[in-house]
Amino acid sequence: MTDDFQKQEKVVEKKAELDKRLDSEDKKNVVTPRSEDYSKWYLDVIKAAKLADNSPVRGCMVIRENGYAIWEKIQSTLDKMFKEKGIKNAYFPLFIPKSFFEKEAEHVEGFAKECAVVTHSRLAQDSSGKLIPDGKLDEPLIIRPTSETIIYSMYSKWINSFRDLPVLINQWSNIVRWELRTRPFLRTTEFLWQEGHTAHAKEEEADQMTLDMLDVYAKFAEEYLAIPTIKGKKSESEKFAGALYTTSIEAMMQDGKALQCGTSHMLGQNFAKPFEVKYLSSEGKEEYVWQTSWGISTRIIGALIMAHSDDIGLILPPRIAPTQVVIATISADETIKNKAQELKKLLADSAINVEIDDKDERPGVKFFAWERQGVPLRIELGKREIESGEIVLVRRDNGEKIKVKLEEVSGKVTSELQAMQEEMFEKAKKFMHDKTFETTSYEELKDIFEKENAFVYADWCGGEKCEMKIQADTGATTRCIPFDQKPKTDKCIACGSPAKERVVFDKAY
Amino acid sequence: MTDDFQKQEKVVEKKAELDKRLDSEDKKNVVTPRSEDYSKWYLDVIKAAKLADNSPVRGCMVIRENGYAIWEKIQSTLDKMFKEKGIKNAYFPLFIPKSFFEKEAEHVEGFAKECAVVTHSRLAQDSSGKLIPDGKLDEPLIIRPTSETIIYSMYSKWINSFRDLPVLINQWSNIVRWELRTRPFLRTTEFLWQEGHTAHAKEEEADQMTLDMLDVYAKFAEEYLAIPTIKGKKSESEKFAGALYTTSIEAMMQDGKALQCGTSHMLGQNFAKPFEVKYLSSEGKEEYVWQTSWGISTRIIGALIMAHSDDIGLILPPRIAPTQVVIATISADETIKNKAQELKKLLADSAINVEIDDKDERPGVKFFAWERQGVPLRIELGKREIESGEIVLVRRDNGEKIKVKLEEVSGKVTSELQAMQEEMFEKAKKFMHDKTFETTSYEELKDIFEKENAFVYADWCGGEKCEMKIQADTGATTRCIPFDQKPKTDKCIACGSPAKERVVFDKAY
Repeated sequence: MTDDFQKQEKVVEKKAELDKRLDSEDKKNVVTPRSEDYSKWYLDVIKAAKLADNSPVRGCMVIRENGYAIWEKIQSTLDKMFKEKGIKNAYFPLFIPKSFFEKEAEHVEGFAKECAVVTHSRLAQDSSGKLIPDGKLDEPLIIRPTSETIIYSMYSKWINSFRDLPVLINQWSNIVRWELRTRPFLRTTEFLWQEGHTAHAKEEEADQMTLDMLDVYAKFAEEYLAIPTIKGKKSESEKFAGALYTTSIEAMMQDGKALQCGTSHMLGQNFAKPFEVKYLSSEGKEEYVWQTSWGISTRIIGALIMAHSDDIGLILPPRIAPTQVVIATISADETIKNKAQELKKLLADSAINVEIDDKDERPGVKFFAWERQGVPLRIELGKREIESGEIVLVRRDNGEKIKVKLEEVSGKVTSELQAMQEEMFEKAKKFMHDKTFETTSYEELKDIFEKENAFVYADWCGGEKCEMKIQADTGATTRCIPFDQKPKTDKCIACGSPAKERVVFDKAY
Repeated sequence: MTDDFQKQEKVVEKKAELDKRLDSEDKKNVVTPRSEDYSKWYLDVIKAAKLADNSPVRGCMVIRENGYAIWEKIQSTLDKMFKEKGIKNAYFPLFIPKSFFEKEAEHVEGFAKECAVVTHSRLAQDSSGKLIPDGKLDEPLIIRPTSETIIYSMYSKWINSFRDLPVLINQWSNIVRWELRTRPFLRTTEFLWQEGHTAHAKEEEADQMTLDMLDVYAKFAEEYLAIPTIKGKKSESEKFAGALYTTSIEAMMQDGKALQCGTSHMLGQNFAKPFEVKYLSSEGKEEYVWQTSWGISTRIIGALIMAHSDDIGLILPPRIAPTQVVIATISADETIKNKAQELKKLLADSAINVEIDDKDERPGVKFFAWERQGVPLRIELGKREIESGEIVLVRRDNGEKIKVKLEEVSGKVTSELQAMQEEMFEKAKKFMHDKTFETTSYEELKDIFEKENAFVYADWCGGEKCEMKIQADTGATTRCIPFDQKPKTDKCIACGSPAKERVVFDKAY
């Protein structure tokens, strides 16, 4: 892994050069190199790019303007994809009565240990004048850790006939899971997400919906986030609490670890039965519906950071970057400011999102600040550029400087943004490919994970015992059972008994 | 009030005619007339238009697809207006530590009696196997009833120098206030809103920001919701708990009652001091910032319903309607279905939001369903229309039927939507005007409120005692002190002592 980082000599050299240009004040926020401390690097990038901040509430983060702007882009993009599939948004209560929560056994088992519980409805003064919880509720309320139960209690009311099906609803909301160890974006007590909930007349329709939504997520990850993923089914031990089966997209981070980026669950009739979500079929028979749920959360911003960024700071793929181009003026001259505005307007006409930085600051400091925030392209604009009619575009991903005639800037910016999007995806794909192995030898499996984190394909009997043994021996877990991957041999890599499926193992976030 | 409703003979006649066309199944959801029971009418419209539904959680509603689509339109419109002012979105925790909440005395006083309190972080089995709250928190957490305290604790960290100011941040989020009496949209335990929070170096800037944001709200209400409002300052007893002063926009509903549609608060340094939000001025002096906060919530959907709808159901102004035109086919013929698609594409090219209803149902039932949902224009499309090349547009607000040649449909739809938007606003303005009085006689004030709900302008000494007396005698409260409204006499209408200001009284939601 260290090797990979060291290969990026260009970036490191550039960083050293920049460091020289910065005074001690600016250096305070310098990012720890990945090769030195990957975890610290991640936190440093978040800080340097002003994406999030710790809050005074344990395990909760504040999503700052830069981070939230990325979330808004993710929201608007996914929302459009959902609506094209006929899915509509709705909003259900934050609170779930304890009794609802308990109705599906696996579900409550999965979430009971990490849920925030509301027990009172006001504060009142005790005899010493101190404010204490008051107005005890008859039944405690759980803050939604996911909304299957509350949503399906409504579906049972709304769905009566086959004519009411399918129901295709999505919700954008906050979620609370009381996590013990938290990290910004990756795992926080409160996070933002979308959760889709559908109900269908037929089992096959729900199966298809589960896969369709996973495809939406994979397409979104590839085309917008420039992150390649593996689509597959989760093992029994890794599936959603209450699902018949869970599918996921798994991505590789720059430390070789896997990050689950989105999940789509086939719920079968597991919730339909306890919540009595029934319909009268066209043959006049009463039937339970078949259901799916699927979600992507702010966690994906963690994946976005870890898949692409470097030792300077954040790198954003152009299609998801809230600001795609920054025009940084080299002096605070009025002519230059006006030219910057003119240029911005020109680019905006080609639907490019532009910000101008015409603050009266040293260009080096300015450039560095924007690089750390991951803006894909920088235009440096000074007197010389205006006089010569030629400006310099600087690409954030590879530091390349491209000279362009002013009259050609719009077309060039568009093509460079597109090239950058594609090259970032290709780079991430190559990285994943280079760190993907397959083996039939248990010794080799252990060796690989001793050396590095990687995607390792191996055959498996499907037994939880072997899954646990592998985890104990290597630290790696089954990430998913990739679709269309039949076992290559007839033996489980761990126990030697007949192989049922081919699995991807990796350590995971 | 009853008079006004009876004037709408056209609508009533139309309803009777429709009723005849419906069978008993369809009639089940018929709306109670306003003149009969205004409160029930409101609930019936919500049900008929499928905007919201009661949830199993006390005081919480489910916002259904139709209602949420309106909220999405409100969000995207306001969000654009905010961004044009340089305001950016961010996200802060749902939870507020009790100690934070207590820091501003008026604030905690205002909200302590109605806040949901989280006391535990998991569920565990007791000795009998029952699940009970477990993992008691050291400090209870309050679910945000508003976010001043948690946000300003972050501002105190982020703001150091005058260079960091102004800070202009908005949050879209859910809010919880444990209300005793709830009504969908108007007052619910959980609701959705936006809350803007700004920090400024100078008092004048914060004053200006407070007014600017109120102007944004008033403009939004007028131009999109077609609701005229009165801008003014709240009395001391009606201001936000913790503000220096509160400004609001007040609208009139069809029963003559006032509904506060948006508020903008000048917080002064009331929060800056306990939260130590300080900056180093350009003169090197440490100063507290001046702050504002402002918000609009899903409550405004209640205003939208009550300002315009009729006894058939919802009426939406075209600029806020998620679906502006419905093309309802008169038979399920393929030629007609294709023509509907063609027409939809044509209208979509003019940025008009169109839905097609080509279900195999009786036209009357179809038309009625869309009318109840408030879609501004309906196009009826059958064989006759295709053959004659002339279709009928039906306006939801006045039932008018307009014949249009197929080749002119795009322009005509655009102009009719615009006309409807303007006429709905004019109608609401006239309604408000006709129900606005002014008086200097206490007897007359009492008489008016005995007869009806109305906006009544009167002079006031500014004393809370008189405010309370008027409320006790008439049921009306001070809605606001309209800007630029100096007292007309020199006497308070209640006590006769020198008048300080001119106030609008009304009963209120």
